[in-house]
Amino acid sequence: MSTSRIKVGIVGGTGYTGVELLRLLSQHPGVQLHAITSRKESGLPVADMYPNLRGHVSLCFQTPEDAALDQCDVVFFATPHGVAMQQAPALLQHDVRIIDLAADFRLQDTDAFEHWYKMPHSCPAVLRDAVYGLPELDRDRIRQARVVGNPGCYPTTVLLGLAPVLQAAQPLVDVGHIIADSKSGVSGAGRKAQVGSLYAEAGDNFSAYGVAGHRHHPEIAECLTRIAGTPVGLTFVPHLVPMIRGMFSTLYLRILPDALDTDFQALYENRYANEPFVDVMPAGSLPQTRSVRASNMLRIAVHRPAGSDTLVVLVVQDNLVKGAAGQAVQNMNLMFGLPETTGLQQVAILP
Amino acid sequence: MSTSRIKVGIVGGTGYTGVELLRLLSQHPGVQLHAITSRKESGLPVADMYPNLRGHVSLCFQTPEDAALDQCDVVFFATPHGVAMQQAPALLQHDVRIIDLAADFRLQDTDAFEHWYKMPHSCPAVLRDAVYGLPELDRDRIRQARVVGNPGCYPTTVLLGLAPVLQAAQPLVDVGHIIADSKSGVSGAGRKAQVGSLYAEAGDNFSAYGVAGHRHHPEIAECLTRIAGTPVGLTFVPHLVPMIRGMFSTLYLRILPDALDTDFQALYENRYANEPFVDVMPAGSLPQTRSVRASNMLRIAVHRPAGSDTLVVLVVQDNLVKGAAGQAVQNMNLMFGLPETTGLQQVAILP
Amino acid sequence: MSTSRIKVGIVGGTGYTGVELLRLLSQHPGVQLHAITSRKESGLPVADMYPNLRGHVSLCFQTPEDAALDQCDVVFFATPHGVAMQQAPALLQHDVRIIDLAADFRLQDTDAFEHWYKMPHSCPAVLRDAVYGLPELDRDRIRQARVVGNPGCYPTTVLLGLAPVLQAAQPLVDVGHIIADSKSGVSGAGRKAQVGSLYAEAGDNFSAYGVAGHRHHPEIAECLTRIAGTPVGLTFVPHLVPMIRGMFSTLYLRILPDALDTDFQALYENRYANEPFVDVMPAGSLPQTRSVRASNMLRIAVHRPAGSDTLVVLVVQDNLVKGAAGQAVQNMNLMFGLPETTGLQQVAILP
Amino acid sequence: MSTSRIKVGIVGGTGYTGVELLRLLSQHPGVQLHAITSRKESGLPVADMYPNLRGHVSLCFQTPEDAALDQCDVVFFATPHGVAMQQAPALLQHDVRIIDLAADFRLQDTDAFEHWYKMPHSCPAVLRDAVYGLPELDRDRIRQARVVGNPGCYPTTVLLGLAPVLQAAQPLVDVGHIIADSKSGVSGAGRKAQVGSLYAEAGDNFSAYGVAGHRHHPEIAECLTRIAGTPVGLTFVPHLVPMIRGMFSTLYLRILPDALDTDFQALYENRYANEPFVDVMPAGSLPQTRSVRASNMLRIAVHRPAGSDTLVVLVVQDNLVKGAAGQAVQNMNLMFGLPETTGLQQVAILP
Repeated sequence: MSTSRIKVGIVGGTGYTGVELLRLLSQHPGVQLHAITSRKESGLPVADMYPNLRGHVSLCFQTPEDAALDQCDVVFFATPHGVAMQQAPALLQHDVRIIDLAADFRLQDTDAFEHWYKMPHSCPAVLRDAVYGLPELDRDRIRQARVVGNPGCYPTTVLLGLAPVLQAAQPLVDVGHIIADSKSGVSGAGRKAQVGSLYAEAGDNFSAYGVAGHRHHPEIAECLTRIAGTPVGLTFVPHLVPMIRGMFSTLYLRILPDALDTDFQALYENRYANEPFVDVMPAGSLPQTRSVRASNMLRIAVHRPAGSDTLVVLVVQDNLVKGAAGQAVQNMNLMFGLPETTGLQQVAILP
Repeated sequence: MSTSRIKVGIVGGTGYTGVELLRLLSQHPGVQLHAITSRKESGLPVADMYPNLRGHVSLCFQTPEDAALDQCDVVFFATPHGVAMQQAPALLQHDVRIIDLAADFRLQDTDAFEHWYKMPHSCPAVLRDAVYGLPELDRDRIRQARVVGNPGCYPTTVLLGLAPVLQAAQPLVDVGHIIADSKSGVSGAGRKAQVGSLYAEAGDNFSAYGVAGHRHHPEIAECLTRIAGTPVGLTFVPHLVPMIRGMFSTLYLRILPDALDTDFQALYENRYANEPFVDVMPAGSLPQTRSVRASNMLRIAVHRPAGSDTLVVLVVQDNLVKGAAGQAVQNMNLMFGLPETTGLQQVAILP
Repeated sequence: MSTSRIKVGIVGGTGYTGVELLRLLSQHPGVQLHAITSRKESGLPVADMYPNLRGHVSLCFQTPEDAALDQCDVVFFATPHGVAMQQAPALLQHDVRIIDLAADFRLQDTDAFEHWYKMPHSCPAVLRDAVYGLPELDRDRIRQARVVGNPGCYPTTVLLGLAPVLQAAQPLVDVGHIIADSKSGVSGAGRKAQVGSLYAEAGDNFSAYGVAGHRHHPEIAECLTRIAGTPVGLTFVPHLVPMIRGMFSTLYLRILPDALDTDFQALYENRYANEPFVDVMPAGSLPQTRSVRASNMLRIAVHRPAGSDTLVVLVVQDNLVKGAAGQAVQNMNLMFGLPETTGLQQVAILP
Repeated sequence: MSTSRIKVGIVGGTGYTGVELLRLLSQHPGVQLHAITSRKESGLPVADMYPNLRGHVSLCFQTPEDAALDQCDVVFFATPHGVAMQQAPALLQHDVRIIDLAADFRLQDTDAFEHWYKMPHSCPAVLRDAVYGLPELDRDRIRQARVVGNPGCYPTTVLLGLAPVLQAAQPLVDVGHIIADSKSGVSGAGRKAQVGSLYAEAGDNFSAYGVAGHRHHPEIAECLTRIAGTPVGLTFVPHLVPMIRGMFSTLYLRILPDALDTDFQALYENRYANEPFVDVMPAGSLPQTRSVRASNMLRIAVHRPAGSDTLVVLVVQDNLVKGAAGQAVQNMNLMFGLPETTGLQQVAILP
């Protein structure tokens, strides 16, 4: 094991983003897995909880006290909201960089954070220096970041699906009335024992949730406003799909009268021409979530049904990869000067 | 078996709408099943193809020649598009009433029919007398109809989800920009052997289809325009959900400035107060498709996220029941003067 | 509401067997639903928890204190193990009959009960009078029973799949080495919030469980021994299938040399010729769980691959109906002198 | 692209084993993809049919005539049965090695082949030299093989699950009465458009099939007899599971009286101690198919319920990987002197 490898710690490796991080990092050529903490499971071999890791990960879960996380180069937090901000200041003092897969460092507006997550923010100073970890929007700042707030799964699809339009040189759409109809696989709810995520509840069933308000709404809105340079009105309705992984966002935008001649296909292709993990599909394409299953790719298709003034943008990703663990590794690669795609070029699993 | 029972024939009983008709009709107290035709399966006991009917249906499939459909009181067509219109004129001469579950008698605009279904309409005169079989919109005409065009599954959800708003006394929403983001279980594609409907293709996957144009778009648009009394602009994006039955439509409407004070919850509740098969759920509800699985109920919830000027209407139904066979039986009840709910009061299967 | 209807109470109506009982009983022509108890949900309309019951069940959950269960004719216990035996003695004093869907009155061997359910049996005298509620094996005693222990789901399939062989006039198979390879949908685990039943855990996955020992093993073994009149050796391996409802047992028996000429197909057909809820399918049939979905039917097919001395019996049922709530209603019908099939003749839902 | 890479052709790359081969080979460091043939899809970019390959595979499907397969080092046949044996002789003349994923080179008994596959064998001489490609049983002969018959998915699980017992120094079990109760995900039926594989048919459903006889039975029996050195009696019942990938075999063996003291756990661990793709799990383990999803690993657990004389062996694999494409790549590695695990060390996808 080379000493030049990045020494990685994971806090809270028992959930789905945790096991997904382990899948990716255990095969990442530039990483040395140093420690995985779980107070509850301390002593248990990680591969006993996740038998897919048998033969790949030999670590046991450790208590935070035993894990010596301050010796890591980077620590991923795959924890409930509120954990990372408790531990961040101490780790930063040891020059450990932090990538939080929860929400602690996503929202610069601490009032919004407190409203949606029902807790005060314990380190607003750290938050101010934190960078929102969407590489396609903010690659350069991520490279320099000490703390990255890894984006939520829904925001990743909506923001990357809207960025080309909102960042265009002139106004193209009615930014006051954007609609994001999003659909997520059940793994997005995590590995928590809760009735709504049971097979017999979520299976053979389709439903909306959070229509009156969802935590990802302020996160999306804050970023949309930042990239559009103007307040953005967003209606966001998330839905639950009976599938394990996968996320699909259908975005509806009204094209402004002066912009009806825009070549939106070209706009998207140009915007993402050099992005390794954003695939603008050919005109007329109908992306499927399985085309990105277990990969870090996000695919976009741009439609304008019947030539109307409504633009329809279809976005797919794997909510656990580009929507969580894969994007976190992509951020790590940037922060440590590795090629951005290192350890992230798996082919999606189909069927 | 009482001679006063309605004598029923089914043409093309081998698909999913066919077996669903048989499930409902075999337990309908006012019906006598007379014949089921399938040229390909003639001679085969229906219950051999559909073992759920063992002990409930003793008929065999017959050829159309042997089936003596002209002795029926009513014939249901659960066939591909184009079959009913070939056979309708002869049956009508024998005073047989017709309920077509395909598209032959849905669109009054024969040009649109020919464009979308790639065949000329063979009996436009019959079509002109046919009634679009959505009881909640046109109950009285259905009672008198000799030919009913049973609505498509998507149109049923979208039309019933929009009718209260479009039929209101004054304009409430921007009718030029209505969005219907619809999701269907795979049974909607029928029992045809096609790759896209395979378990290994449609399972654990989510996708959009027909974004550039779907046959149900002109059907919805024609009816919307009729009930709104003005042309309606609709963006309709159907999606495929990895579940067997169930349909969910999320409808987005922009409320007009003068209508922002409207009590939409009350509007919907009043509109459907006496409808046995439309359930306007309490404010804040999140309907699930499973709440109507295998029942003829359609449920609606009305939302206005964050008090904005966007109205969000959620509609669920079982695509094979209220979206097909159940609605056909509801129409039959109306046409023959039975209580509308006869044979249709099953409790939905949950879980 | 006729006063001659059976007055029914349900204790613990919040789980899957509870809602299934409500589905069946709310449409049962001989029943009046009197009360449903749930201490935790008291005051909540049942239909708020289970929206499929909207319009069909108007009761609210009540505390046991308010529910006046002693005024019922019969009380169903859809509760965790151990509840029914606490409440049975008091109810019996008021001449209320009891049908327990949990295990309290299934095992006559209280040592086995205590071993597997980790609690002492609190009313062994009541247990001694209780009848194991498998109508096809013990119809006459059920008719007279004051307390019925409703069978477990696995035992129903295994016992009905083996009875014709074990009850035959002469020995037909090696009763020392019977194998039951059983598969259950996830609803069998109930509506408990537990990680193993999550969609993202049980979906797209297949596994065995309880190989070292399962609570249904002693229940099956006790009954097998009773009907065989000799100790029976059973290897029972349950598996979890990614589906909501449905149970499939594949039974393997070694035919004794002297019995190789037996016509097993005829044996099964004769044994169950008059059973309304056991369907012995034609020779060569391959039953599917969906052929009984949401119905009280159990189907059996008998095979002897390649004419060998191994008999293979395939059994399907809906675990929540014939495996639980439907069988309980069947028992109630018997106990109250109604036709056994009353309220239980629904056609299975397919697809 | 190094000239020392193995030049690979694939015949019939449009099915599930084809796309899985492409997933594995496109990331295999020792392989150069030379050509993929499909007469029907010739000219179509492979990634247009399988969008998961966008960015990974740039080849188009070619006609066999254009594909210059005789310039390959090895050709994989991912075709229907009967194709490889037609093309094998010509390829062999050009020193091209062949790995057939269909059945042409699995059965040495050509009568059995003709009986089960309904066609004469066109090149019995090639067949005689072909090696059955189960590396754990016949690694050395595979290294030297010019033609490998890649095992069926069911046989891989049953043979590897039984080999330790049947290859033991002394008789351990009754080899006349072995039971294999096997369960497969729907992808095992391939990407053929057939009704039985539709989502609405196979979903939320469980069934047995091929009870009277299945093509994999003679394949398993021939190999079992070979490794046991004595005829083996096998009852094999395959079942269809509503999941995409995954195979689970539950094997039941009766232990001989003299062998009751055998430490079967140790027997299995020793037998597979050095196998990179067979994982004998710790005593008491309950393997899940998802623990090997999309990986080449096969996992085994050994049980002896209640200390009886019945041995229960549980085996899981991904039917498309260790059961097909992965095993084919493993064979290729052996045939070309590469480390056996090259390109096959992906971590399974969980959840």
